[in-house]
Amino acid sequence: MKILIIGANGNIGKTITPALQQKHEVITAGRNSGDVSVDISSIASLEKLFARIGTADAVVCAAGDSVTSDLLSMTGEKYFTGVQQKLLAQINLVITGLKHINDNGSFTLISGKMGEDPAKGSSGKAVANGAVNSFVLAAALEMPRGIRINVISPSKITDIATEDLVKGYLKSIATSANGEIIRIGYN
Amino acid sequence: MKILIIGANGNIGKTITPALQQKHEVITAGRNSGDVSVDISSIASLEKLFARIGTADAVVCAAGDSVTSDLLSMTGEKYFTGVQQKLLAQINLVITGLKHINDNGSFTLISGKMGEDPAKGSSGKAVANGAVNSFVLAAALEMPRGIRINVISPSKITDIATEDLVKGYLKSIATSANGEIIRIGYN
Repeated sequence: MKILIIGANGNIGKTITPALQQKHEVITAGRNSGDVSVDISSIASLEKLFARIGTADAVVCAAGDSVTSDLLSMTGEKYFTGVQQKLLAQINLVITGLKHINDNGSFTLISGKMGEDPAKGSSGKAVANGAVNSFVLAAALEMPRGIRINVISPSKITDIATEDLVKGYLKSIATSANGEIIRIGYN
Repeated sequence: MKILIIGANGNIGKTITPALQQKHEVITAGRNSGDVSVDISSIASLEKLFARIGTADAVVCAAGDSVTSDLLSMTGEKYFTGVQQKLLAQINLVITGLKHINDNGSFTLISGKMGEDPAKGSSGKAVANGAVNSFVLAAALEMPRGIRINVISPSKITDIATEDLVKGYLKSIATSANGEIIRIGYN
């Protein structure tokens, strides 16, 4: 399988990339690292990425920023960071990727536990994560050509065993799972 | 209780306003109707609204647009409509309203069933609704001065009995509920 991993140099990307490389052709991409550079908040940059790599069987996104801050210090701009960098960027990736992903391929997006089970200071994360989760639930109903879409929702990444993380990603990439919020490391 | 209802002229607003007026002082606001006019996507407009009405005990938002469209016809711009008009607008309302709401007051936002249980064509709604739900879960943990925040998540409004809708709003406004997604008309 030809797998594109965006954000391959982040904490999650670094963990799953070696495991996926064992059995698959992996192309890594990131803002400042990887085989190909990409800014997923830009559709032009995404189009350039796919023009360079051609088609893929699985598109994995492990990138997306949001702001952590006390509620009373949050501003519209701080919420917008997560909306733009984590939510709309991943939506752009799916919209653009649909033109370049193979039949029966899969998208695996990233959200996080704070979308469903927030802690204090996480409202910026919560907004982005909750929206990504709901996008995946809805988009899965309308994916064309047998394409699937799931989202990995991890708790704090340093608390998660590599094996559990890889298992979650393989569930999305290599099973029939569609429209699933794959929760990892929730207590 | 002094209750501010934004979007009082919409389907939900028109249903709940007469019921709430029976026991409370209700101030209605809307883009083109109500006692006071307001554009909740503008912080300046929200500040002007509160300057005019003073403080409130309950702030209810029943306004917020998003786009309904087949997934393959959706664009970044269409998703952004819901993000801006339904998500960021309601967040702005809370950020601004926190300066003007009384101790132990409440916010009641609006999302919708498509955030949790989407149908085809609802991905634009899903994104906005899911994000609003998660915002409320997170924000409720950090509300100051005994203030509460909940969200009404209705199914199709024409399928809901007035009595059930009013009961949902009264749960948010007049009980100790905090951080709740109040689901109405789900099957």
